[in-house]
Amino acid sequence: MTGPGPFARVTPGILEELRAACGPDWVLVTAEDREPYGSDETEDLWFDPEVVVRPRTTEEVSAILRVAHARRVPVTPRAGGTGLSGGALPVRGGIVLSVDRMDSILEIDRENLVAVVEPGVITQTLQEAVEAAGLYYPPDPASRGSCTLGGNVAENAGGPRAAKYGVTKDWILGLEAVLPDGSVVRPGGKLLKNRTGYSLVQVLVGSEGTLAVVTRIWLKLIPLPRFRRCLLAPFPDLEGAAAGVARIYGAGLLPAALEFMERDAIRLAAEHLRTPVPGSDADALLLLEIDGNHEASVEADLGTAGEVLLAAGATDCLLPESPSKQADLWKVRRAIGEAVKKTSVYKEEDTVVPRAALPALVAGVKGICARAGVRVVCYGHAGDGNIHCNVLRMDLDEAAWNERLPGVVEEIFRLTVSLGGMISGEHGIGWTQRRYLPLALPPAEIAVMRALKRAFDPTGILNPDKMLPEE
Amino acid sequence: MTGPGPFARVTPGILEELRAACGPDWVLVTAEDREPYGSDETEDLWFDPEVVVRPRTTEEVSAILRVAHARRVPVTPRAGGTGLSGGALPVRGGIVLSVDRMDSILEIDRENLVAVVEPGVITQTLQEAVEAAGLYYPPDPASRGSCTLGGNVAENAGGPRAAKYGVTKDWILGLEAVLPDGSVVRPGGKLLKNRTGYSLVQVLVGSEGTLAVVTRIWLKLIPLPRFRRCLLAPFPDLEGAAAGVARIYGAGLLPAALEFMERDAIRLAAEHLRTPVPGSDADALLLLEIDGNHEASVEADLGTAGEVLLAAGATDCLLPESPSKQADLWKVRRAIGEAVKKTSVYKEEDTVVPRAALPALVAGVKGICARAGVRVVCYGHAGDGNIHCNVLRMDLDEAAWNERLPGVVEEIFRLTVSLGGMISGEHGIGWTQRRYLPLALPPAEIAVMRALKRAFDPTGILNPDKMLPEE
Repeated sequence: MTGPGPFARVTPGILEELRAACGPDWVLVTAEDREPYGSDETEDLWFDPEVVVRPRTTEEVSAILRVAHARRVPVTPRAGGTGLSGGALPVRGGIVLSVDRMDSILEIDRENLVAVVEPGVITQTLQEAVEAAGLYYPPDPASRGSCTLGGNVAENAGGPRAAKYGVTKDWILGLEAVLPDGSVVRPGGKLLKNRTGYSLVQVLVGSEGTLAVVTRIWLKLIPLPRFRRCLLAPFPDLEGAAAGVARIYGAGLLPAALEFMERDAIRLAAEHLRTPVPGSDADALLLLEIDGNHEASVEADLGTAGEVLLAAGATDCLLPESPSKQADLWKVRRAIGEAVKKTSVYKEEDTVVPRAALPALVAGVKGICARAGVRVVCYGHAGDGNIHCNVLRMDLDEAAWNERLPGVVEEIFRLTVSLGGMISGEHGIGWTQRRYLPLALPPAEIAVMRALKRAFDPTGILNPDKMLPEE
Repeated sequence: MTGPGPFARVTPGILEELRAACGPDWVLVTAEDREPYGSDETEDLWFDPEVVVRPRTTEEVSAILRVAHARRVPVTPRAGGTGLSGGALPVRGGIVLSVDRMDSILEIDRENLVAVVEPGVITQTLQEAVEAAGLYYPPDPASRGSCTLGGNVAENAGGPRAAKYGVTKDWILGLEAVLPDGSVVRPGGKLLKNRTGYSLVQVLVGSEGTLAVVTRIWLKLIPLPRFRRCLLAPFPDLEGAAAGVARIYGAGLLPAALEFMERDAIRLAAEHLRTPVPGSDADALLLLEIDGNHEASVEADLGTAGEVLLAAGATDCLLPESPSKQADLWKVRRAIGEAVKKTSVYKEEDTVVPRAALPALVAGVKGICARAGVRVVCYGHAGDGNIHCNVLRMDLDEAAWNERLPGVVEEIFRLTVSLGGMISGEHGIGWTQRRYLPLALPPAEIAVMRALKRAFDPTGILNPDKMLPEE
């Protein structure tokens, strides 16, 4: 294998330097202590790190990176460990740098509508804290109860509300980050606009821990919308649901969320949670949410949405009456990923296409998998054209699965690209998708990405073998 | 002077190569033809380009850059030429590459809510075209009648509606761009989410034509809000107006625009347009706009805003009754820049601070200028903390002006940075502010920006001597 390096192994001398950098208690060396840091939520992959460090401060992160840089030891940054493309896997061994102890909400600034947090803060924890202050941080990845804001920044995480509010990049005003040589940069801040030099903030968001280690985050907040209502619309077929999506936007509506679930997805989640879901005998469902500050406007838009979806072929329009019934529905939606994945060995693809190409994408993916004799379950963010396709092994024997899967993945990606799409909408490229990058991007684009990586990390120690394909 | 280069001069042989690249009619060589391409709207600066090329296609842009790259001739990209930091000035001579002929709206895709345009399309032209289709492209720099979308991308342009809708970067889904060596990249597309590799789109937005020449742009659209209403609130002092801004957000309102103008600013604009403006005898004015799809909600929010501003000390709350009266008010607001600048020789600083620091910024700038004995007029985007400070020479003699100005600018920038701000909110660094960058950014940040520049442009031919300070 070619790639960055050669790298050094972690010697006893390097361990001593790391202990000096962040304190002996926070340098984990036993196999038992290292074990949980070898995997994230990507399939069943596990790699053994040589050492795990758990710094508490920016200065400690800087000291660790100075050691790694001087000794040429690879460093894999890690936040919540909930990634789905293997970005936190220590594929070259070396040092896992976990920011889990950097978990303070430093400030919720009500005057400027900005939150300042450390990277280990769990997304939902921050959301609940700002909502208690009447404020709102919209990005809501399905894993928001366990993922962290540092990981959200690294992956430019999305979620259902991206349909109206955009993804993580749209909410990051400033970052503090440590470069691979240990130097600290602090682009942006409590500023809603900033044109002072290149946007290092936007370069770092979504860079999957390959350019710098984020140690502090400035988040944009807005006033919390006072009302939110959702509706669930069952459709007899996928095409009808997709047509419904187009008509919602054609009617001038801008829903806070617009989710697509095929029957198998919602059934598995309902079984997993033992919660009955109305309409789950339909082939496809749309879950739509409207939010706003005026109840009458929210109700009016919800009414329009219902009419539009019924006209598009929905067999019903179910309006959960209480906030708790609405929450139940979202709980089922959020459980789909886990439910599908515990059903079988799986491979998840995070396809994204122009919204109008959704019917062609879903029908095409179904066809590819049918021809290969494997099962697939599709669900995701219809409002964004971002559909998660879970290919399931079920009772297929392992040899057949291993033989068929690479071709299926490649066909799905070629279809996605042929529809004007890309091979990841929100999960990132990481370790598991890097080999497919050349299917999506031309050599000139990959070449300039390599140059960008070298500009930040000339020795290649930071999260090696991630995102970019082997040279 | 140190910097990139050495560069070659444009020889007759290079002119022949350029004529082959984009056709002989579009290679301008006479002094008369070159003259208009030597300035933009930055003060009274002018530099003589050796040659101006006006390609029509991406292929022609690529061919021109291949010539420039092979011959080491500097290239200054140019779009509308309305920049305020000298980004389009050919400070090293060489080639001005004007995209003014690349001015087609290629597509308004109503299904995907995406517009595809060439970089020379005037911003307002695109806005009117999409609004005719019931859609909306919010970013609205004051110069929208003459600036172009290519320039908006290069500068990451803002405008009043950034208060609610963000700046250009938040609306760019994809770009086609030619790298300095002539290779073409096409990151993004009609995709609302994309996590496939580093975000080259976001690297290029705001890069001031120093990394690549943008040749095509994919813009995100939303449904056009059906109603918009504005109000004008005069205040007896600047502090009251600033307090009003804070209270608007404290009340949970999210105005589409929230503009601040001090008395001199609005008076100069009113005189310039010969339009009387109500309330223009007040020391400070706030102009607020609410938009939305439901008339009752817009009216209710406008009522709340009025109450909040009166409680904050506004002496009145003026509601223009008709759309045409509203348009008049915005016309006055948009004319301020031009009106102020034709009053006197001037230097404009594009300060941005955390919103709550606005009173300290404005009071501080007034104090700095009073002590130096120069006049200053402040106005801008209060909702974003982005205030344009125009230092005016008026009848000060030239020698005193030249002696005092650098110190005044430096003091204004030091104040801005001390308040947690930055030295440009939306105009960019370009040529005129590059020497001040080290006041705002630490050496580690400038170093990584230099590395980023080298990654895209190793020979340094693209817009040399812009944004980054001399080495």
